[in-house]
Amino acid sequence: MSFKDECGIFGIYNNNSEQFTTSLLTYYGLFALQHRGQESAGIVTLERDKNKTYSYRQMGRVSKIFNENILNHLAGDIGIGHVRYSTHGASAIRNIQPLVVEFGNGPFAIAHNGNLVNSDILRKELQNEGSIFHTTVDTEVIVHLMSKGYYQDMENTIITALNKIKGAFSLVMMSSNNLIAARDPYGFRPLSLGKLGDSWVVASETSAFDLIRAEFVRDIEPGEVLFIDKNGLKSLFLEDYKKVNHAHCVFEFIYFARPDSLIFGGKSVYELRKNFGRKLAQESNVEADMVIPVPDSGVPAAIGYSQESNIPFEMGLIRNHYVGRSFIQPDQNLRDLAVKLKLNPVRELFKGKKIIVIDDSIVRGTTSRKIINMLREAGAKEIHLRISSPPVLGSCYYGIDTPAQDELIANVFDANTTEIKDKLGADSLEYLSLNGLNEVIGTDHKYCLACFNKKYPVSPKGIERSPQMSLFELSKEDL
Amino acid sequence: MSFKDECGIFGIYNNNSEQFTTSLLTYYGLFALQHRGQESAGIVTLERDKNKTYSYRQMGRVSKIFNENILNHLAGDIGIGHVRYSTHGASAIRNIQPLVVEFGNGPFAIAHNGNLVNSDILRKELQNEGSIFHTTVDTEVIVHLMSKGYYQDMENTIITALNKIKGAFSLVMMSSNNLIAARDPYGFRPLSLGKLGDSWVVASETSAFDLIRAEFVRDIEPGEVLFIDKNGLKSLFLEDYKKVNHAHCVFEFIYFARPDSLIFGGKSVYELRKNFGRKLAQESNVEADMVIPVPDSGVPAAIGYSQESNIPFEMGLIRNHYVGRSFIQPDQNLRDLAVKLKLNPVRELFKGKKIIVIDDSIVRGTTSRKIINMLREAGAKEIHLRISSPPVLGSCYYGIDTPAQDELIANVFDANTTEIKDKLGADSLEYLSLNGLNEVIGTDHKYCLACFNKKYPVSPKGIERSPQMSLFELSKEDL
Amino acid sequence: MSFKDECGIFGIYNNNSEQFTTSLLTYYGLFALQHRGQESAGIVTLERDKNKTYSYRQMGRVSKIFNENILNHLAGDIGIGHVRYSTHGASAIRNIQPLVVEFGNGPFAIAHNGNLVNSDILRKELQNEGSIFHTTVDTEVIVHLMSKGYYQDMENTIITALNKIKGAFSLVMMSSNNLIAARDPYGFRPLSLGKLGDSWVVASETSAFDLIRAEFVRDIEPGEVLFIDKNGLKSLFLEDYKKVNHAHCVFEFIYFARPDSLIFGGKSVYELRKNFGRKLAQESNVEADMVIPVPDSGVPAAIGYSQESNIPFEMGLIRNHYVGRSFIQPDQNLRDLAVKLKLNPVRELFKGKKIIVIDDSIVRGTTSRKIINMLREAGAKEIHLRISSPPVLGSCYYGIDTPAQDELIANVFDANTTEIKDKLGADSLEYLSLNGLNEVIGTDHKYCLACFNKKYPVSPKGIERSPQMSLFELSKEDL
Amino acid sequence: MSFKDECGIFGIYNNNSEQFTTSLLTYYGLFALQHRGQESAGIVTLERDKNKTYSYRQMGRVSKIFNENILNHLAGDIGIGHVRYSTHGASAIRNIQPLVVEFGNGPFAIAHNGNLVNSDILRKELQNEGSIFHTTVDTEVIVHLMSKGYYQDMENTIITALNKIKGAFSLVMMSSNNLIAARDPYGFRPLSLGKLGDSWVVASETSAFDLIRAEFVRDIEPGEVLFIDKNGLKSLFLEDYKKVNHAHCVFEFIYFARPDSLIFGGKSVYELRKNFGRKLAQESNVEADMVIPVPDSGVPAAIGYSQESNIPFEMGLIRNHYVGRSFIQPDQNLRDLAVKLKLNPVRELFKGKKIIVIDDSIVRGTTSRKIINMLREAGAKEIHLRISSPPVLGSCYYGIDTPAQDELIANVFDANTTEIKDKLGADSLEYLSLNGLNEVIGTDHKYCLACFNKKYPVSPKGIERSPQMSLFELSKEDL
Repeated sequence: MSFKDECGIFGIYNNNSEQFTTSLLTYYGLFALQHRGQESAGIVTLERDKNKTYSYRQMGRVSKIFNENILNHLAGDIGIGHVRYSTHGASAIRNIQPLVVEFGNGPFAIAHNGNLVNSDILRKELQNEGSIFHTTVDTEVIVHLMSKGYYQDMENTIITALNKIKGAFSLVMMSSNNLIAARDPYGFRPLSLGKLGDSWVVASETSAFDLIRAEFVRDIEPGEVLFIDKNGLKSLFLEDYKKVNHAHCVFEFIYFARPDSLIFGGKSVYELRKNFGRKLAQESNVEADMVIPVPDSGVPAAIGYSQESNIPFEMGLIRNHYVGRSFIQPDQNLRDLAVKLKLNPVRELFKGKKIIVIDDSIVRGTTSRKIINMLREAGAKEIHLRISSPPVLGSCYYGIDTPAQDELIANVFDANTTEIKDKLGADSLEYLSLNGLNEVIGTDHKYCLACFNKKYPVSPKGIERSPQMSLFELSKEDL
Repeated sequence: MSFKDECGIFGIYNNNSEQFTTSLLTYYGLFALQHRGQESAGIVTLERDKNKTYSYRQMGRVSKIFNENILNHLAGDIGIGHVRYSTHGASAIRNIQPLVVEFGNGPFAIAHNGNLVNSDILRKELQNEGSIFHTTVDTEVIVHLMSKGYYQDMENTIITALNKIKGAFSLVMMSSNNLIAARDPYGFRPLSLGKLGDSWVVASETSAFDLIRAEFVRDIEPGEVLFIDKNGLKSLFLEDYKKVNHAHCVFEFIYFARPDSLIFGGKSVYELRKNFGRKLAQESNVEADMVIPVPDSGVPAAIGYSQESNIPFEMGLIRNHYVGRSFIQPDQNLRDLAVKLKLNPVRELFKGKKIIVIDDSIVRGTTSRKIINMLREAGAKEIHLRISSPPVLGSCYYGIDTPAQDELIANVFDANTTEIKDKLGADSLEYLSLNGLNEVIGTDHKYCLACFNKKYPVSPKGIERSPQMSLFELSKEDL
Repeated sequence: MSFKDECGIFGIYNNNSEQFTTSLLTYYGLFALQHRGQESAGIVTLERDKNKTYSYRQMGRVSKIFNENILNHLAGDIGIGHVRYSTHGASAIRNIQPLVVEFGNGPFAIAHNGNLVNSDILRKELQNEGSIFHTTVDTEVIVHLMSKGYYQDMENTIITALNKIKGAFSLVMMSSNNLIAARDPYGFRPLSLGKLGDSWVVASETSAFDLIRAEFVRDIEPGEVLFIDKNGLKSLFLEDYKKVNHAHCVFEFIYFARPDSLIFGGKSVYELRKNFGRKLAQESNVEADMVIPVPDSGVPAAIGYSQESNIPFEMGLIRNHYVGRSFIQPDQNLRDLAVKLKLNPVRELFKGKKIIVIDDSIVRGTTSRKIINMLREAGAKEIHLRISSPPVLGSCYYGIDTPAQDELIANVFDANTTEIKDKLGADSLEYLSLNGLNEVIGTDHKYCLACFNKKYPVSPKGIERSPQMSLFELSKEDL
Repeated sequence: MSFKDECGIFGIYNNNSEQFTTSLLTYYGLFALQHRGQESAGIVTLERDKNKTYSYRQMGRVSKIFNENILNHLAGDIGIGHVRYSTHGASAIRNIQPLVVEFGNGPFAIAHNGNLVNSDILRKELQNEGSIFHTTVDTEVIVHLMSKGYYQDMENTIITALNKIKGAFSLVMMSSNNLIAARDPYGFRPLSLGKLGDSWVVASETSAFDLIRAEFVRDIEPGEVLFIDKNGLKSLFLEDYKKVNHAHCVFEFIYFARPDSLIFGGKSVYELRKNFGRKLAQESNVEADMVIPVPDSGVPAAIGYSQESNIPFEMGLIRNHYVGRSFIQPDQNLRDLAVKLKLNPVRELFKGKKIIVIDDSIVRGTTSRKIINMLREAGAKEIHLRISSPPVLGSCYYGIDTPAQDELIANVFDANTTEIKDKLGADSLEYLSLNGLNEVIGTDHKYCLACFNKKYPVSPKGIERSPQMSLFELSKEDL
């Protein structure tokens, strides 16, 4: 119950197209990544022999957007797909990814998870040189950077272009004969390589491989640009490949990634979350009758906490999974109903009891306050809030939609005092310490902890958090 | 992962309509009952002073069907609603409830959860006397039974009609000035009364009250017919009221009802499920590394099992909640993908481990087999399946959609031998015993256990499980 | 530009179903009758050997509602269909015809063009005897009247029921083995019999036969009830068959029917309209430069007028056929735009010219005023309005949606003076005389002229023009 | 019943936005131009003070695509719109106009009626220089040609770009402060300037002005580029402005333009069509009982023919205006039904009669043959087909969708013999002579007659009639 991720990406170089349909596998891949973005989705396929692309991109969820008829129209043996949490309302339709354009020698498509910090500067430069932008997403900058030399030497062109962009990017791209996967030298966002029969697949998380029974091979390395064609794999590397420290997004472990995924070197998200809970119990346990998670993201940490503390785990909040986008908002007389639409307490559990509530993080604090209030009304005697990550102090500039800093409750109030606890109405409140977090994730990899310590691996200076847009395109769904 | 319930019902007699909109409360009520039926929904409201009803009924889920504009059109101070799992394909649209008709003195509407065992006989009789049927649901029989004397003495008419029907029925009805709630003398299906300010609400489960902050008052008694009008409540009783034993559906506890609901005398569903798990651990524990539930319905039993056995609880299967009706079915080359769309194993947990899997019931066994296979592939060393209810031997005739008896795995194979275990591929399989079940649910109430012991409280003789229908109406959703 | 008709009906007893699909022929039949009602449409088909009906009924036009998939689902060898102009807003969906119900021995369906004058009385009587109404259309009364003896002797039952109803009715009905066509003894609305190979078809107008290449055989006679089954045709007659004078609706000739149809004894609608124009020229010609019709309905009369008067015919008003229901209404600053959306003048024709404008009728006068104003602005020097029917003085109670009498301009102002002319802004205004009308239509048949002379063949006493309805069902299209 | 036009365009520089909504006027303007393209439509508006554009573009007709809510979102005081007949199936959605892009200094939008003959060459050149194409329409070439110098001197940039393109183009464009209208030096397609209060409007045809009560001011001159801003109008001219002969498309007079429009120097389309008919009667009259048009396009010529020949005009074919895109195609057993869906004969008129049928042109001849066959079946004794334009011999490369030359019946058979007449089944067939045509249209302007005489004003050499496309984007409407 916190930040919103912006994208999930999937790609396939299909050498078994008589056996598996490219578009169908891409569809399943996106479906397994649906949690990374629910507002729009798109699939682009390419017929290698005809050098033609077929695309379908719409607002909405994967299972609503596509049907068999559509997938049948998406012919081809290379496919890429994208799910997206869109941040900019009415202009969404124009910006649905993957982006598809025509270069001199044929089509090119790209899907992006991450955020570029120098896209505004590059965009101005490119426009001054005559580039015309059709969208307002930073991804289009990459396409224009590639435009000059593209058809002479594609590999060189792509490397040159990617060397110019700064920030977070995990990319899948598609040209006449290639599927290309790339990851920024910091490795902010995850991206993994898998194998299905003789075919290659790339996905933001390994849960996409599990679903289609592909095997996890390895991560795309930070700074790697992997070209896949009929001859197999070829790895090239960006110029900062060895120069910069890795900076994997720790929030992928805390909240974004699916618990059944392996990311950042094959680490189990579920295990780490449980260990965050264990560590939290070691650091700040309290006597209580039960431990309950805020579902679904708090469940593994609560299990870990319960196992460490020997306080019984209970599923005391029932999540309603039928809540959709179109839900009618309650009026004044039914305040606090919004949180109940999603979570209802098992009231009988709580009467006169001391409860430890485990959540993965606190951002604004709004939901936490409502949950505590709801449990109090249900009869809980004591409510101890335990958070399986440190206080969130900084906004993210690497692909996650965070509130402005002055909306972060740990920025407004002092997390070292009782201010936040009082604000939320809890009897006690403890966060996982930064040290504790580091102990759990280990030192074999480097992580970006900017949202907790404000140390930004790539300077976000000059980046506008809500860039000025001049092109608003309305979609049917807006209206 | 078992039977399918057929309906949820909700009603409100709104004395605070300037504060709460009747249709909006009915909408939230239905939303909280969405788990009881996801294929169609309807709301009917009535303006008492104008004696007019407004209805909107469609295929699909509550949050998709209704919007603010529609709710604003549904004016009135009495409202009833219905969610339904429809069993009969193309003819669904014609049969969406609530049913609304016009008697001589005004409109009448009815919503039904349950199943009548003598509806075919009554239908023939009524047709011979000139009744014309517009739908193929058994509920229409009730309306025709009431038609003769309706406007002379409504109370008497309703009692007379309900005395003629046999089987399971929890009903909410609405006439010019009344909201009426009724329950068959056996009390097969739950139905509760609540209060919201000066207004009265009736719902299949108390979770509907929680959402709108209504207070649970009491159950509608088996055999009670409760008339609510501007003067308050008035209870009448059916003639079998004292003559028959209660027969509450035990499957509501095992699977149907929401864990946060109180049913059948205010019993907590969550607590009972946990106790099924505890009892199961007492009866048939086995050495293992972890206990995992088949989510979501198996969670409370697995927690109980874990607490009783001191074997750690893990959320080892991750449920994907984005699966919708329109999902594209995988082709031949992706067999077993269907179950993975819903459940993915946290593979890292299982390698070389002994696992106890808790599910609420086994019906056909198909899903259990796939889950065990999936866990085996993920590396589990031993898989012990424990079921928190006894073997299902009999079909249900009281409002639940069950497979024919010869499709029930415990009917086909002998649950006292290892046949089913072998069929499913488990290392061991144990069910909760019937005695164990009875101990947990207690003896203060009587329950229908027909699906476990084939002792049917009301003879289902003569009932057709798939009655002949002559009117097929297509809906947009079918096409 | 005048009254609105309420229905078109079509039926087929298909003996060539291997060659022609029942539902497809019904679809084309309805399509050819679309001008008789554009707000909803429905098709019901029946498989004789299975005694099952299949129906699909929706708001909207025939070509929007049905597609190949739907028609394929509508299996069978008897089919009936209905198009409807619905008069009652939100409740429309519930009342879409054909009506389909289940009697004791099987399904029954009915489609109705016309209006019953004693339906309110019959409805009350039937409700007192226990009939339950699911719709608010008068057609349901017929079904209830038939309910008692239906399955003993269908023919007798239908005749008995139809003898009880009064008013205008052209009906197609369908039972287990029969297609039945019936027409009230006055013959208010048209209904014709045709033949297609070995199959029988029935339709409101012969243009439906033309489209599917069926041959026109004869009219269903006023008072005739025609039963069609595998043995062929059998005619029975209602008790008033010989007792009452025919009263064919003359407005079918003036406005409703398609000009390419033959109705009321095979009379050509086009020829009659031309002759109305000729007679009008004889009665009240004036010197002018051109004759222009208000398209499309005024075209044949304008041609007749031009031929008789030798004043050139010009298509001076261009009709825009893209105007649909969903058109956005112009705001204040674009007044009079509404009529221009439909009709635009060929301005160059009119400068300084004397123009005779031919319209089929004047009801409220609103459109006529706007047209005259528009022509005046386009530069016309003189505008002479000629109407090819007499002044409309009375409302219709026999199946046509007319304004209340006090909204009819010829009731409000005196058609014998210059009041209406002045109101409309014309330089002169003349109507076809009642005598002239009679001369053109001839004396071989009797006609209902009630809208011109207020002599009502069947007393409309006691009929409510906007009957009280208690059941409002919303459709997706309302919202 | 012949060629298909490809576009209609509309633009407004609104100085009265408090009085008239920019988007609403654009909507009405497009509505009046709907006959020029029915497959997609789009509106783009621009707020001058914010330098932001708002766009909405969809497949379908104007009245279906837009609603009040959408128009309210399209804020601004400059607006352009486009209706389009799309030729390329699945790829349609990507190519819907107007095109909207972002240059360095703000947004730019363009809508195009016409066809460029050198777009393929320019596209390759631009791609070689690094331009990236997002669409497959030739219009995007214009945008890229402008990209280099755009924000230094917009006027110069636009002139320079337009000087490079060859072929037919009537354009409306929109930049931060300007509405711009331009027309190729040949003046192939019409484009007119109008005034509404203090606001300026531009439209393909003057019928768009009539609807919104704007006054026709003058045509945009061939070769003129008109810049409209807050200071008023400023005209610049393309370099070929004086060098080339005008080549107005004569088919606009014959078929495309609305009869109530004034085009190519304010000529009345209706009058010209009548005069084509008069001239045709002078050239090749025949004795007959009546003259009937193929509606709607043949009506004025038939009136002219009738007036010249004194043979009575009859509306003998009734057009059904309810036929839509989604109409279900008849099967084998209902051959020839397709034409009847649109046109039904008034059979009674034709028995034993000699008929002159007037159509505007013959392209493939398919429809003409069916009509003649239909009239023959209706009993006509003689059928004389008269065409109010010369035989079509050449394809069009200037913005009209024509069949390939070998599908043109006058290319396959010799129009100077009886071959075509025999093929169509007529008793006689005569075309308007090329001389006759020229006499009617006069010599004050020059016209493109390439479809009749194959003299192409701009060489179409090198143009591909179905250019290779590599980007297929599916729309909801395709699927």
